[in-house]
Amino acid sequence: MKETFFTLRTVMWEEDDTVRMIDQTVLPTRLVYKSYDSWEEVADAISRMVVRGAPAIGVAAAMGVALAAQRSPAGGRRQLLKDLEKAAAGLRKTRPTAVNLFWGIDRVLAKARSVEGDPRAVKEALKEEVLLMAEEDVKANMKMGKIGASLLDDGDVVMTQCNAGALATVGYGTALGVVRAAREMGKCIRVVIPETRPALQGARLTAFELSHDGFDCMLISDTAVGSVMASGRADKVVVGADRITKDGSVFNKIGTYQIAVLARRHGVPFYPVAPRSTFDMTRTYDQVTIEERSPDEVVRIRGRRIAPKGVPVYNPAFDRTPPELVSAIVSDEGIVRSPVDKNLASVIR
Amino acid sequence: MKETFFTLRTVMWEEDDTVRMIDQTVLPTRLVYKSYDSWEEVADAISRMVVRGAPAIGVAAAMGVALAAQRSPAGGRRQLLKDLEKAAAGLRKTRPTAVNLFWGIDRVLAKARSVEGDPRAVKEALKEEVLLMAEEDVKANMKMGKIGASLLDDGDVVMTQCNAGALATVGYGTALGVVRAAREMGKCIRVVIPETRPALQGARLTAFELSHDGFDCMLISDTAVGSVMASGRADKVVVGADRITKDGSVFNKIGTYQIAVLARRHGVPFYPVAPRSTFDMTRTYDQVTIEERSPDEVVRIRGRRIAPKGVPVYNPAFDRTPPELVSAIVSDEGIVRSPVDKNLASVIR
Repeated sequence: MKETFFTLRTVMWEEDDTVRMIDQTVLPTRLVYKSYDSWEEVADAISRMVVRGAPAIGVAAAMGVALAAQRSPAGGRRQLLKDLEKAAAGLRKTRPTAVNLFWGIDRVLAKARSVEGDPRAVKEALKEEVLLMAEEDVKANMKMGKIGASLLDDGDVVMTQCNAGALATVGYGTALGVVRAAREMGKCIRVVIPETRPALQGARLTAFELSHDGFDCMLISDTAVGSVMASGRADKVVVGADRITKDGSVFNKIGTYQIAVLARRHGVPFYPVAPRSTFDMTRTYDQVTIEERSPDEVVRIRGRRIAPKGVPVYNPAFDRTPPELVSAIVSDEGIVRSPVDKNLASVIR
Repeated sequence: MKETFFTLRTVMWEEDDTVRMIDQTVLPTRLVYKSYDSWEEVADAISRMVVRGAPAIGVAAAMGVALAAQRSPAGGRRQLLKDLEKAAAGLRKTRPTAVNLFWGIDRVLAKARSVEGDPRAVKEALKEEVLLMAEEDVKANMKMGKIGASLLDDGDVVMTQCNAGALATVGYGTALGVVRAAREMGKCIRVVIPETRPALQGARLTAFELSHDGFDCMLISDTAVGSVMASGRADKVVVGADRITKDGSVFNKIGTYQIAVLARRHGVPFYPVAPRSTFDMTRTYDQVTIEERSPDEVVRIRGRRIAPKGVPVYNPAFDRTPPELVSAIVSDEGIVRSPVDKNLASVIR
């Protein structure tokens, strides 16, 4: 078995005080790491989905603020904090739905404000904070993996959606972390991967990551989800989440909701997996903005036009799965059992 | 309003005794008509989905047999019939799910067998038969359109799947024929088009056909069907069918079943539209072969690889929607109301 934890590391703070990330836009053809020198470059990388996945975005954005600190010419603490707030404002605008983005930015800003002393002390503290956040992310994923693996049985075929793997986090993964942990316990788990249009994270990223790490997997078109469920080819659904609101609604990659509906119809349990930072216990589902992305994602695939010019497009990036379709939520603070709307507050504090 | 009936004609028998078809593999980039000279060329065109859509396939295959007659050097009637049966056998192997293929082939074979006289008389009779079949197809579509348009209200947003339009028939369309007829009655109808992976008939063909004919339409990823339904953006679903069995099961393009499940959940009526030739009143759903197509359709889009090499793929081309999810079936013999399994036999004779 490969030590997958060490093989793919998506977001890193380097010793030369730059941020290093896998460029996920060129996967699966090439595995390329790129270095980012400024918060503006990190913000652009988040917007263009060079880095994506709620936990990875959270840490990348935090590292963006830490980069802003490193690059700031401020002579005093007050000016440095102003520079950080400017970077934070720019990073916040990149993507609206994943709550981890705001969580990561707020955490480093709070840290910066709490540090006494000159700019150098703040810069050092932020560097330590983002290194800690990266470690915490991997640890939380490994912990969630162990907790969630109890829900999977030897021989299970698990359907996922998008990529909630090592590539969506700093490492190990959320949904795929559960699959990894189950394998580490000796269970044989196979994975069905819907390609996840428009950005094809299933085909490009999850198929790459799982093949890379030696898992038995099967790629399908998004249109084949119902057929796979109806023919009994999936035993469980395990997905990530971009935001889970206090009413138990799960916001995740577009297409997740219809998988949840089909899973319910066919008696297949549906399990979202997310660390504490993905839970938004201050908001209900109706207060969440669903990002709409460029029509270009739909009408062009890898540069090739697939639809006539000028046709109107609706391209929401996420959807909401209501709590009644959720069998249980796996988090690093424990499993929220059904009914998740009632049980959420007793597990996630 | 454009006279759409005359603008797109998908399959034609030409005066020089060749078959002319729109090459649907290069749409929406180019609108190209190609000529086919032999039954082998027609069989290849059906396999490669140069021509697709159950009614169009039925007529194209029949024309393939008629071409075999034209090209046959047989001096006697008996040898000619042998040549036709060989062509029929080859054409039957192209695609297994759409029943119209077999219906079209069987109809011209029966005609050939019924004609008295020398080969020339048989050849002439087959030419007349396929010209008649093409006319009947368009007439059936226009009749179904009128019948089905009564189910649509002014202002409706209709979701479809794949292409069940002029491009799936000789002309006018089945599902889109209903939309056309409703417009001709003065109703304003807008259409939501899921792109329909893997072959992208929604994005490539339906978006092309509806834009070409001046309809207000909106293209979405297949993953956005649930989101569109949940947000109340679709009032009706109108789709074609490749085979409807005597138990009321509707076999149609992969992805149709999950649209039907979501439609039911959100109280959206689900209407398949199909001519008599699509009904298979001799078989039940468990006797139908679902075609599995090449993994290449999933891992490559317009020549570009979107998944890592070697990843296993499951690529069913069709799925089954059970009768309990069908609100009504529109055919040229009338509307089969719900429960369609009970009412089918009294309408389709």
